[in-house]
Amino acid sequence: MQIGFVGLGKMGGNMVHRIERDSDHEVVAFDPNPEAVATAEGHGAVGAHSLEELVSKLEKPRLVWLMVPSGKITEDTITALTGLLEEGDTIVDGGNTNWHDDQRRSKELEPKGIRYADVGTSGGVWGLDVGYCMMAGGPDESIAHLKPILDVLAPPDGWRHFGAAGAGHFVKMVHNGVEYGMMQAYAEGFDLMHAAPFPIELKEVAGLWNRGSVVRSWLCELAELAFEQEGNDLARLVGYVDDSGEGRWMMNDGIEMAVPTPALAASLYARFYSRKEGDYAARVLAALRNQFGGHAVKKVEET
Amino acid sequence: MQIGFVGLGKMGGNMVHRIERDSDHEVVAFDPNPEAVATAEGHGAVGAHSLEELVSKLEKPRLVWLMVPSGKITEDTITALTGLLEEGDTIVDGGNTNWHDDQRRSKELEPKGIRYADVGTSGGVWGLDVGYCMMAGGPDESIAHLKPILDVLAPPDGWRHFGAAGAGHFVKMVHNGVEYGMMQAYAEGFDLMHAAPFPIELKEVAGLWNRGSVVRSWLCELAELAFEQEGNDLARLVGYVDDSGEGRWMMNDGIEMAVPTPALAASLYARFYSRKEGDYAARVLAALRNQFGGHAVKKVEET
Amino acid sequence: MQIGFVGLGKMGGNMVHRIERDSDHEVVAFDPNPEAVATAEGHGAVGAHSLEELVSKLEKPRLVWLMVPSGKITEDTITALTGLLEEGDTIVDGGNTNWHDDQRRSKELEPKGIRYADVGTSGGVWGLDVGYCMMAGGPDESIAHLKPILDVLAPPDGWRHFGAAGAGHFVKMVHNGVEYGMMQAYAEGFDLMHAAPFPIELKEVAGLWNRGSVVRSWLCELAELAFEQEGNDLARLVGYVDDSGEGRWMMNDGIEMAVPTPALAASLYARFYSRKEGDYAARVLAALRNQFGGHAVKKVEET
Amino acid sequence: MQIGFVGLGKMGGNMVHRIERDSDHEVVAFDPNPEAVATAEGHGAVGAHSLEELVSKLEKPRLVWLMVPSGKITEDTITALTGLLEEGDTIVDGGNTNWHDDQRRSKELEPKGIRYADVGTSGGVWGLDVGYCMMAGGPDESIAHLKPILDVLAPPDGWRHFGAAGAGHFVKMVHNGVEYGMMQAYAEGFDLMHAAPFPIELKEVAGLWNRGSVVRSWLCELAELAFEQEGNDLARLVGYVDDSGEGRWMMNDGIEMAVPTPALAASLYARFYSRKEGDYAARVLAALRNQFGGHAVKKVEET
Repeated sequence: MQIGFVGLGKMGGNMVHRIERDSDHEVVAFDPNPEAVATAEGHGAVGAHSLEELVSKLEKPRLVWLMVPSGKITEDTITALTGLLEEGDTIVDGGNTNWHDDQRRSKELEPKGIRYADVGTSGGVWGLDVGYCMMAGGPDESIAHLKPILDVLAPPDGWRHFGAAGAGHFVKMVHNGVEYGMMQAYAEGFDLMHAAPFPIELKEVAGLWNRGSVVRSWLCELAELAFEQEGNDLARLVGYVDDSGEGRWMMNDGIEMAVPTPALAASLYARFYSRKEGDYAARVLAALRNQFGGHAVKKVEET
Repeated sequence: MQIGFVGLGKMGGNMVHRIERDSDHEVVAFDPNPEAVATAEGHGAVGAHSLEELVSKLEKPRLVWLMVPSGKITEDTITALTGLLEEGDTIVDGGNTNWHDDQRRSKELEPKGIRYADVGTSGGVWGLDVGYCMMAGGPDESIAHLKPILDVLAPPDGWRHFGAAGAGHFVKMVHNGVEYGMMQAYAEGFDLMHAAPFPIELKEVAGLWNRGSVVRSWLCELAELAFEQEGNDLARLVGYVDDSGEGRWMMNDGIEMAVPTPALAASLYARFYSRKEGDYAARVLAALRNQFGGHAVKKVEET
Repeated sequence: MQIGFVGLGKMGGNMVHRIERDSDHEVVAFDPNPEAVATAEGHGAVGAHSLEELVSKLEKPRLVWLMVPSGKITEDTITALTGLLEEGDTIVDGGNTNWHDDQRRSKELEPKGIRYADVGTSGGVWGLDVGYCMMAGGPDESIAHLKPILDVLAPPDGWRHFGAAGAGHFVKMVHNGVEYGMMQAYAEGFDLMHAAPFPIELKEVAGLWNRGSVVRSWLCELAELAFEQEGNDLARLVGYVDDSGEGRWMMNDGIEMAVPTPALAASLYARFYSRKEGDYAARVLAALRNQFGGHAVKKVEET
Repeated sequence: MQIGFVGLGKMGGNMVHRIERDSDHEVVAFDPNPEAVATAEGHGAVGAHSLEELVSKLEKPRLVWLMVPSGKITEDTITALTGLLEEGDTIVDGGNTNWHDDQRRSKELEPKGIRYADVGTSGGVWGLDVGYCMMAGGPDESIAHLKPILDVLAPPDGWRHFGAAGAGHFVKMVHNGVEYGMMQAYAEGFDLMHAAPFPIELKEVAGLWNRGSVVRSWLCELAELAFEQEGNDLARLVGYVDDSGEGRWMMNDGIEMAVPTPALAASLYARFYSRKEGDYAARVLAALRNQFGGHAVKKVEET
């Protein structure tokens, strides 16, 4: 079978590689960066140098998988594709899109007869070898069409169809929120052990925990690797942690649905704090303490 | 080799069973409940019907493993054993003891020459088959003496010696704190998916996530089992969740060491809330809202 | 001067009462409930029995103050008014509207030349006597027109104009978020004192704290009143606490702007928990504990 | 009447000043710093240059008020005083002592017949003029003896006797925990307003809120002062916030009593974060993100 791929970055490039390496499917691959297209061609893909070329090289009904940054770029790409695709074709958004946007887009494309599917993808840079865990949403026809591709991208039995458009990204959003909480749980634990009054070899702890303990997990395996590479003090790393949106969206949905998500909140805010957000709040606290207690406050010139 | 076992409940009984089944070591086993002793004898252990008998059946230097409820019972058992043991013997506390108590006890036993080791044990009811992940603290001589026992109790390469007395339970305490956070992370995720505006089969989500996703873990495997057994709504279960102490201790240590543990706090408080703790605080909120806003409050007679 | 008032409930009715009692301004008052209109007439207002009648009784440029439930009712009322008002008239939304909606509406009304102002109002049922603390947003012309009304509704020097449309409700939203945090802070304190191992008369604590302590506040005065009326155990009250939206909106804005608001999150989630939200998460925890530890779980039939 | 005062720092010095200024009571004042003694003498106190001298200048039954740093210094001072005082004398600890220590000390002093009272004191540097809000614990006889002193130190009706030794500091501890939560609530609010997409004059907000709003309080008055002195950006201040112990103790007590205190936890951890605690946890997060996602992490050399 045939599929178009738009976006050949770290994730998309590896996915094309995996499809070409492990199946007979044909991928028509486009990226604004010609080097990325050349790399895909090197893996066996048919290169395209524009959306128009990509669409023209696909047989109907077409499948076009988007693996581009969420937000404006995804939005613009879909708008452009909408003008090129036809009734019965399917756009698959494999990126990190908010599921509310999936629902909206799916409705917007309906009058044109263009189908919309969303596939949340987990697995990171390991997916090329291990396979990508995939959470799909969208119409049954599109998912049936997509099945052979999902079969090769995922590990054995490693994808599910959860419902109409948005369902895939919803489950993926929750996946990432859970990931935030798990990572924060480990991080607090390693922080306390690092602060313990006696030295603890954290690589040994992470390694041991993966041997029969209740907290064994893939993240704990990665922690062992990280301590092995970076040392017990992680001295080369800076404690500055980005967030990619899904944690925020899950917070918002929890608030909307009145589902308390305090561990997620703790995890997201810990990332904010790591970036010195909340600093102004701390200055307010210092100012108030100075007012009522005459507590010395640090002034900028002193630090 | 030979070891004494005090406490043959769910954990201790299985551990004796595993030692007898998988090694040639001799276990002298005591429990106040004669049926538990009989069961251990059935697995091949030498039964004892008092601490005195247990001690008398062990060759010097003796190893006595305690697997009894933490707190007063552990404390009393150690006091009794102190009167029976001799210089060079080792008491091993395998229960859920606060590591500060290990440090204290170790010092108290020093003048008598009795050694003290602590072994934090994870793995739950699955340990009989999978092996117990074991985190040890105490003097090198004791741990060396204990090694053949740890080798059979643990899965392959599944125990570590982390330092002086208390180190084992410290790492185990953190293990449990991490466990609280991970469990809360999953629970919030499943809660939100259960509240979603479209039905999601949570057994499928848990199963899928274990196939290549970032959040794959043993707990997620257990979640799949749980949904399979209890159904998507967990309708037979009541949302009342106990805590066993380690989470509280880790909170306290974090506070003492100025290590923020907000995800752990969220997890512990979520368990408190599940037990209707905090209800009085909610009544204070209702009372205040009524005072300033005239907001209707529910009165007891109405509910 | 003259103003129209739409919505004569607990808040709007009292505001009309205060204007008529304390000034010579003329209020034209409408509410779908004729009794509310009659009450306003009793306080000196000119009654109106439809939006059309209200608009027809106002001289240009008109001022129409909305004091109706936020969301759909406010939206529908503004739509209806838009068809009745003319260039230079001002709609004032005095309710609990999300400031993002104010910004949108203000733009939507611009082509028609209808001005839009938003006034966040605090003070609750005490406002009739004490005055309402008022936070205003909107065009300078509208606020200048509105000034005599704000002067009589507010306590001395008790209103401010914070910027364009939305600014008033933004500051009011934050006010409510702060209120959530303060209330939760007191509630946790009183909860702990109520749980203390010796009896503490909480009315005495609240009363004392208002005499020179750092935490003296109006809410603490209300707490004293509440304990006086309801007793130390608040035994007649049920710990079920609603939230009215602003706390959620402030959470969302904090997430959007990367401003950590952990105390607000704690406060909002505490209210969710008081309503048994999060119960499903607790059942997930119970199910997991049962899986790995064989911990007894409560089944529905047992409770 | 007569009272001895040990500790003439910022708090103790002002308290002696207030007693001498506003009453006929005689204060015998000691501090290791002779200048502080001289200042107290200047306010009318009788100076003492050792604990022995202080005790010798007091008539029996003696009252000795300690206003020294909590922890070791308080402990040592009480030990020294225990050797100097006699049956029927009372030690009053007016500092920031953990109430569990009060209970212990009270019992330790019982065999000697020395009484022990604890007085939690709020009001900060404003207490000299406004009076100190005082929360007392200890035996009735001691509090009766102390009454004239409390009457002059407190504002009108501004002290209470809450129970046996420890009760005063318990209520004071909760007072400070509530203070943490309130301060954090305001700080989050001002932080969000400072980050708003349009400029907001925070001095105006704080000032306005004190005029009839639900969140009016003394802390909000201090916020107005702070913004007036430091400007809208608090640009001279550094966001580094200490904590003085009571918040930690209240957390610990809440954990012990199973009372959820999530707003307090948020407040305490926000202070930890302001001091870069939790940085190691953030490095763990960065390391994990790098492992699974190939996410770029900042290295020390880059920053």
